[in-house]
Amino acid sequence: MNTTLESLSSVWPLPVRGDSFERATPDLLRRMDAVSAATACAKLNGMGISRTAVQGPTPLDRGSRVVGSALTLQFMPQREDIASGTNQEYVERDTALWAVLETVQEGDVLVVQAYGSAFTGCFGDMLVRYFKRRGGAGIVVDGRIRDAARVRELGVPIWCTGTTPHYASQTDLFPWAYDVPVAAGGVLCLPGDVVVADDDGAVIVPSGKALELVQSAEDHENWEEFSRMRLEQGGRLSDYYPLTSNSRAEYEAWRDGERLPHA
Amino acid sequence: MNTTLESLSSVWPLPVRGDSFERATPDLLRRMDAVSAATACAKLNGMGISRTAVQGPTPLDRGSRVVGSALTLQFMPQREDIASGTNQEYVERDTALWAVLETVQEGDVLVVQAYGSAFTGCFGDMLVRYFKRRGGAGIVVDGRIRDAARVRELGVPIWCTGTTPHYASQTDLFPWAYDVPVAAGGVLCLPGDVVVADDDGAVIVPSGKALELVQSAEDHENWEEFSRMRLEQGGRLSDYYPLTSNSRAEYEAWRDGERLPHA
Amino acid sequence: MNTTLESLSSVWPLPVRGDSFERATPDLLRRMDAVSAATACAKLNGMGISRTAVQGPTPLDRGSRVVGSALTLQFMPQREDIASGTNQEYVERDTALWAVLETVQEGDVLVVQAYGSAFTGCFGDMLVRYFKRRGGAGIVVDGRIRDAARVRELGVPIWCTGTTPHYASQTDLFPWAYDVPVAAGGVLCLPGDVVVADDDGAVIVPSGKALELVQSAEDHENWEEFSRMRLEQGGRLSDYYPLTSNSRAEYEAWRDGERLPHA
Amino acid sequence: MNTTLESLSSVWPLPVRGDSFERATPDLLRRMDAVSAATACAKLNGMGISRTAVQGPTPLDRGSRVVGSALTLQFMPQREDIASGTNQEYVERDTALWAVLETVQEGDVLVVQAYGSAFTGCFGDMLVRYFKRRGGAGIVVDGRIRDAARVRELGVPIWCTGTTPHYASQTDLFPWAYDVPVAAGGVLCLPGDVVVADDDGAVIVPSGKALELVQSAEDHENWEEFSRMRLEQGGRLSDYYPLTSNSRAEYEAWRDGERLPHA
Amino acid sequence: MNTTLESLSSVWPLPVRGDSFERATPDLLRRMDAVSAATACAKLNGMGISRTAVQGPTPLDRGSRVVGSALTLQFMPQREDIASGTNQEYVERDTALWAVLETVQEGDVLVVQAYGSAFTGCFGDMLVRYFKRRGGAGIVVDGRIRDAARVRELGVPIWCTGTTPHYASQTDLFPWAYDVPVAAGGVLCLPGDVVVADDDGAVIVPSGKALELVQSAEDHENWEEFSRMRLEQGGRLSDYYPLTSNSRAEYEAWRDGERLPHA
Amino acid sequence: MNTTLESLSSVWPLPVRGDSFERATPDLLRRMDAVSAATACAKLNGMGISRTAVQGPTPLDRGSRVVGSALTLQFMPQREDIASGTNQEYVERDTALWAVLETVQEGDVLVVQAYGSAFTGCFGDMLVRYFKRRGGAGIVVDGRIRDAARVRELGVPIWCTGTTPHYASQTDLFPWAYDVPVAAGGVLCLPGDVVVADDDGAVIVPSGKALELVQSAEDHENWEEFSRMRLEQGGRLSDYYPLTSNSRAEYEAWRDGERLPHA
Repeated sequence: MNTTLESLSSVWPLPVRGDSFERATPDLLRRMDAVSAATACAKLNGMGISRTAVQGPTPLDRGSRVVGSALTLQFMPQREDIASGTNQEYVERDTALWAVLETVQEGDVLVVQAYGSAFTGCFGDMLVRYFKRRGGAGIVVDGRIRDAARVRELGVPIWCTGTTPHYASQTDLFPWAYDVPVAAGGVLCLPGDVVVADDDGAVIVPSGKALELVQSAEDHENWEEFSRMRLEQGGRLSDYYPLTSNSRAEYEAWRDGERLPHA
Repeated sequence: MNTTLESLSSVWPLPVRGDSFERATPDLLRRMDAVSAATACAKLNGMGISRTAVQGPTPLDRGSRVVGSALTLQFMPQREDIASGTNQEYVERDTALWAVLETVQEGDVLVVQAYGSAFTGCFGDMLVRYFKRRGGAGIVVDGRIRDAARVRELGVPIWCTGTTPHYASQTDLFPWAYDVPVAAGGVLCLPGDVVVADDDGAVIVPSGKALELVQSAEDHENWEEFSRMRLEQGGRLSDYYPLTSNSRAEYEAWRDGERLPHA
Repeated sequence: MNTTLESLSSVWPLPVRGDSFERATPDLLRRMDAVSAATACAKLNGMGISRTAVQGPTPLDRGSRVVGSALTLQFMPQREDIASGTNQEYVERDTALWAVLETVQEGDVLVVQAYGSAFTGCFGDMLVRYFKRRGGAGIVVDGRIRDAARVRELGVPIWCTGTTPHYASQTDLFPWAYDVPVAAGGVLCLPGDVVVADDDGAVIVPSGKALELVQSAEDHENWEEFSRMRLEQGGRLSDYYPLTSNSRAEYEAWRDGERLPHA
Repeated sequence: MNTTLESLSSVWPLPVRGDSFERATPDLLRRMDAVSAATACAKLNGMGISRTAVQGPTPLDRGSRVVGSALTLQFMPQREDIASGTNQEYVERDTALWAVLETVQEGDVLVVQAYGSAFTGCFGDMLVRYFKRRGGAGIVVDGRIRDAARVRELGVPIWCTGTTPHYASQTDLFPWAYDVPVAAGGVLCLPGDVVVADDDGAVIVPSGKALELVQSAEDHENWEEFSRMRLEQGGRLSDYYPLTSNSRAEYEAWRDGERLPHA
Repeated sequence: MNTTLESLSSVWPLPVRGDSFERATPDLLRRMDAVSAATACAKLNGMGISRTAVQGPTPLDRGSRVVGSALTLQFMPQREDIASGTNQEYVERDTALWAVLETVQEGDVLVVQAYGSAFTGCFGDMLVRYFKRRGGAGIVVDGRIRDAARVRELGVPIWCTGTTPHYASQTDLFPWAYDVPVAAGGVLCLPGDVVVADDDGAVIVPSGKALELVQSAEDHENWEEFSRMRLEQGGRLSDYYPLTSNSRAEYEAWRDGERLPHA
Repeated sequence: MNTTLESLSSVWPLPVRGDSFERATPDLLRRMDAVSAATACAKLNGMGISRTAVQGPTPLDRGSRVVGSALTLQFMPQREDIASGTNQEYVERDTALWAVLETVQEGDVLVVQAYGSAFTGCFGDMLVRYFKRRGGAGIVVDGRIRDAARVRELGVPIWCTGTTPHYASQTDLFPWAYDVPVAAGGVLCLPGDVVVADDDGAVIVPSGKALELVQSAEDHENWEEFSRMRLEQGGRLSDYYPLTSNSRAEYEAWRDGERLPHA
C-alpha cells in the first residue's frame, strides 16, 4: 500500500501530480539519437522555436550524452507551515521527489525546476541509484546534486549547476510537484517533450516539433559530413559551410553516389 | 460570454486556473494594517516560518504600503509553439494576465512569479488602471513594470524589480497561470495568503499564521512605543531594547496606566 | 588650433574618430517627442527589431525624458602603455571624452559604451556643465557618473548605472573613440540613431526605422486614449485593450468625431 | 553594571573589541567638510591610495552628506553553537552591535562590514534612534537596514545596500566585533579613519593621509570654481578643465584678486 | 632570527596573529575520515548547525578529499599606505601568508578568507610546495590560485573559486592575519575546527560538535550500506531510504549478523 | 573573387576590417614559449601594465597552453535592420567571422570580444576545423563555443566562458569587425599583441613590452628553479622565495656553476 504518496501537509495537498502524458515513441528517440544538442537547438530556431537551450546546467561528466522523454519535477521555496527539512512531522519521502522516482520508465530523462539554487542538492547517491535501477536515462536539474563522487560511479548522465553537500530539503527549497510543466534554466518543458543533452548542454525539443526536427537534422548531419570532407581537401570555408547553391549541388551528387573531383 | 478565457494553445490548455481559495477576513486585514513588514517578518521567524521576505522587488514609490489578500499570477518561459508575442495567432488578451485581472476583488494584492526578469514589463499603464478600477490594492511582482511615469500617477502601490520598456509578452516570458501557488523572490505564496508590504519590502504571511501573528505584533508595537519613550528619556539601549524582565515590568505598569518615574 | 585632438599615444593613434553621420531632422524628432520609450520599443519589436531597450542605465532623476540624435562615445579597458589615469604623460583632456564634447550639437543625446562599469564615473559636474552649454539634450551611459548632487542641479537628463566617486580614467576604463558604433546595455547604437528615453529606460531607434515608427506610434497613442476612456467608463479590459475588431470600429468612429454611447 | 558586555558564548569570547584608537581632530573634520567624496577619492588616488570608494552602499536619502571619524563594526556568518537569532540562550543585546552603540561619540560615522548581505537588516528604527541620541553622525553599512520609513524620519544619513524586513541576527550573519579593522565594499577601514560620504557614495580617508588630502582638495575646489566661471563665460573645456599652464596662471591672478578679461 | 615576522607597516602592526588554539586529536580525525562532506553537513544540520558548507570553492582536481584541523588566514582589501604589491618598501614575504606557512603542522587544512576574489591568486606553485613539505594536508580558499598546472602536479588537494595569473598581492587584496576566525564562503571557521572536504565541497565542523557528529555519521554510513543493498535487491525507495521503523528493525538485525530474506 | 567580403548590410558597411598590423617575430614567440601566463602577468605588473589577465575565459581542456600573435574579432549586439540570424537576406558567411578565418596565419591566436555572452556559441566544429587547417594556434573567446565534444577532438587549445548549443548569430550578438582593437574580459588587446595562455587563463602582452618581458621572465624562471631546489632541501620559504640579497648571491653562484652546500 502506497501510504507515502498521501498529502504531507494539512495546509496544501502535496505532492501535486499533473495529468498523464505521452512519451515519445522509441523510433523517434532512436532517430533523435543522431542529433546533437547544437543541431537540435539550431534547427528548432529555424523552425521558429527560440528558447530551447537550458541555461545553467552543465554535464557532471565530460562526454555525457542522452536522448529521452521528459519526466518533470518542480521544487518550491520551503515554508515550514507546509513542509520543511527541519519540521518534525515532515517526512522527506512523502515529497514529489520520492513520488516521481516511482514513476520512472525505461529511458526517461528527469527535468527538474530548482531555480539554479546553490543550496539545494536535489539528488544524491541513493536517489540516482534508484533512478538508474528503474531504467532512468539521465537527469537535467536546474540546481545542484550531492554525493558527486559516488554519483559519478553510477554512470547516469547528469546536467546540473554544481555540487553541494546539502540534501534536497535542507535549506531553501523542497520538492513540490511532478508531471507538471516546469521552467528549467529559462526554458519551458512539458512532460513528454524530448530532451537532447550533451557536452554543449541540454535542449528541450517540444514533442510536437520532434519529428520535423529529426528530418531536418538528418539532412544537416549529412551535408556537414560532406562539408567536413571538402574543408579537409582544402575547400574554402565560404564555399562549403554552409553550403552554397553550387556546393549543395555537389553535395547532392556525392550523396547520390557520384564520384566528385577534389575541392 | 467569456470567449477570451478559452485555451489559447492547442498544445497546452491555457490559461491554467488553480482552485478557488478563501481571502482573509476584513477584520484580520484591518488588524494587520498596524503591522510593519519588518515586524511581520520577525514575528513569523519567531513562529518558525523563516522564508517570508520577498527578495528583489522594491517599492516603485517611497512610502508605499499595502496589506491585502494574495491573488497570484505565474509567468513561464515563452515558447512559440504554445504562445508568443511574435506569434500571429497569439492574442495577448487570452493569457492568464488578462484573465486574472477579471477576478480582482476589492483589496486584493496581486503577487506575480516572473523570475526577476529584466526583460519583462509585466504591467503597464492600462493594466494597472484596470486593476485599480476593480479595487486592486497593490501589486508585488518579481519582475519589472513599464509605463512607469503613468503608473506612478495612478497611485497603486507596486513592488517590482525595476522598469523596462518591454511589454509582458515581448521577450522571454508570458503569462501562464493564476490562482496557483507561486514562488516570488524565493518565497512561496499561496492564493489567499496575507501580503504586508512597505518600504522594507514585501512579506508573505501564511494565511494560517496570520491571526497568531497579529496578536503577537500588537504587543510588540506597544512595548516598542514604550521603549522609544524610554530611550528618548535617556534610557540605555540594553535596558529597554528589547525589554528585559525589569523593563517589561515597567512597561506593563505603564501600559496599565501607572505613572512611571523617568528612565 | 585644436592641438588637443592629436594622438595621445605613440602605441595607438588616439582618440579614434568615426565617419561623419547625419542627425535626424527636427521635424522627425518633434514627432517622436510624443512617443514613450515603451511604445517605441513595442512598435520596433512589431517591426522586427527586437533589441532596442538599453539594459542597465536608469534615470538619475525620476521624470526624466529626452528625444534626440545619438552622438556616441566608446570606452576601452585602460592599458598603461597607451594611456592611463596614473600615467604622468597622459593628459585626460586629450581623450575621446574631451573631443566628443567639442562636437555636441543642439539636441544631441550622448550614448556611451562603458560596459556597465561600477568603477568608472564617466561624467562629472564640469563635463555635464559643458555638455549643457553646448546644447546637449541628454546622456545615456552604460556606466556611472560622479558629482551626482551637482549634476542633478544642472537639469540635464541622464540615464546611468549608478554613481561613484571615481573619475572617468581613474580605474579600469578610459575614453577611446567617438562617432563610432557602440554597444550600450546590449543594444547596438549607430551615430545618428534616435534615442527615446524616459522613466522606463532608454530605447535606441534605428534611424532608418524612425519615420515608420512615428507613424505607427501616433495611431497607437490615439487608440490608447480611447481605450483609457472606455476602461474608465467601465469597459471590459479584453474588449478595449488591445482593441478588438469591434472596438476598433468604435474607436475609428470616435476618432472621426462621432458621438458614442457609453461602453 | 555592564553585564551585557560579557561574553555571549562559551565557545568563543564575544563580543570582540579591538584596541582603542584616536579620532580625527574637530579642526581636520571641519576642513574636510568642504571636500566632496569625488574630490577625496580623486586626490587620494593621486596620492597613491587607490581603493577608497566603498562599493555597494548608496545613500538611503538623496542629498545625504556626512564627514566624521570611523567607528567600526564587523558581522560574521552565524553559527548556532556560538550565537544565533534562533538560539534560546542567545540575547541579541549581548552582541557587538549593542556594545558598539554604547561607545558612539559626537560626530562618529559607523562603518559596518556585512558582506553586502541581502538578508541582514543591520540597523532598524530603535538602534538608529539610539545612535542619533548619542550624537552619531552617519552610518555606512555594507549590508541592508530595516524599518526604512521610520529610519528616514530620524534624519541620520545612511549609506546601505538596500532595505529588508529582516533584523540583524535573523538569518545569515550576526554582530561579532567592534573597534577592529573592517572590509566594507572592498575597502579597508581602520577605526579612526575619516569617512566622507555623499550622493556619489562613501570614501574612506586613511587618517594619516587626511591632512595632505585636505590641503590638496582646497586648492582643487578653488580652481574648479574658476573653471566653472570660465566655462560659463564660453571658455573651451580643454583650456579650463583641468587647468593648463596658461589657465592656471589666469586662475592664480584671479585668486589673488586681479580683474581678468572674459574667457 | 625571524625578522620577517615583524610588522610590515608603521600604520598598523602586521601581520596580525590570533591566539593559540587546539587541533583535533588524531583519533577524532581518523574517525572523521569515514564521513563524507554531505553526511557531515546533513548531520550538523540535524544537530542545529545550519551554515557549514563553504559556498564557492570547488575541488581543483576531481576526486579530491581531505580531513584535518583548520589553520586560518585572512586577506583584507589592499591599501597602499599600509602594504601593497606596488609599494617599493613592501616585501610580500613579511605578510601573514608567509607567516602562516611557517606554522603548518602535519595534517593541517588551511582555510582562507579571500572574499571569492577573481583577481587574487592566493597560492602558487612555490607556496603550495612549501605547504606540502611542512605536512599540510589541504587548502580551502575562498579565492583563486595560480600556477594551476604545477600545483596540480604537487597533489595537494585544494578547493578554490578558480585560477588566475595574478599573485596574492597583485591587485585588490593582501594577506592580513592568521590564527583568527575567518568567514569563508559564508561559513564561520575558527582555528582548530575540523574541515571535511570532497567533490561536493568543503564543510566546516565546529570542533565542539565533531565527536557527536562522528558517532551519528558512523551509524548513518552503516544503514546506508544496508539500504543500498536492499535497493539493489529491488526494495522500494520509500521503504529503505531513509529507513522506516520496519526497515530499521531489519537493518539492526542485519547489522547484528542475522540472515535476512530478500527485500 | 571574394564576393563574400562585400558589405552584408545597406545600413552599415560590414564586415568592418581594421588596419594591417605586424605579428611578433618567430624568435620572440619562441622565447615567450618558456613563460607562464602567471609569470607574464606578474612581470607586466612590475613593468607598470596592470590589466593583462583576461577575466572569464578558462581552458576548454586542462593542460592547454598557447603562445602566439593576436588576431582579433569583435561581436556586436544583433540588430535585424543590419544583420541577423533570423533575417532571410542575411548570410552568416558574409560576416567578420568568416572573413577573419580567411586571414589566419600559422601560429595566430584569435582573440574575440563577445561580452561573455552565455547565449552565443562563437565557434563550432566546422569553424575550428577550418581555423586549424589554416594553422591557427589557439582561440581566446570572451564568450562560449558549441560542438564542444567535436571541438575537443580537434585539439586546438581554446579559452572560453563555457559551452552552449547556440550558434554564433543565433541570439544576441553577431560578428561585426576584425583586425580592430578589442576588449576581452576587461583587457584591451590590439592586433599583433602577444597572447600567453595556459591553465591559469589568458594574458595579453602588449607587443611593445614583449621583449622586455621575455628578458625579465627568463631570469625569473631560473631563480625559481633554484628556489624550488632549496625549498626541497629544507630551505626556509622566507629565505628563498622570493630571493633575499643573500640567497640571490647564492643563486648567482649556482647559476654560474659553483657547487653550493645544502640549504
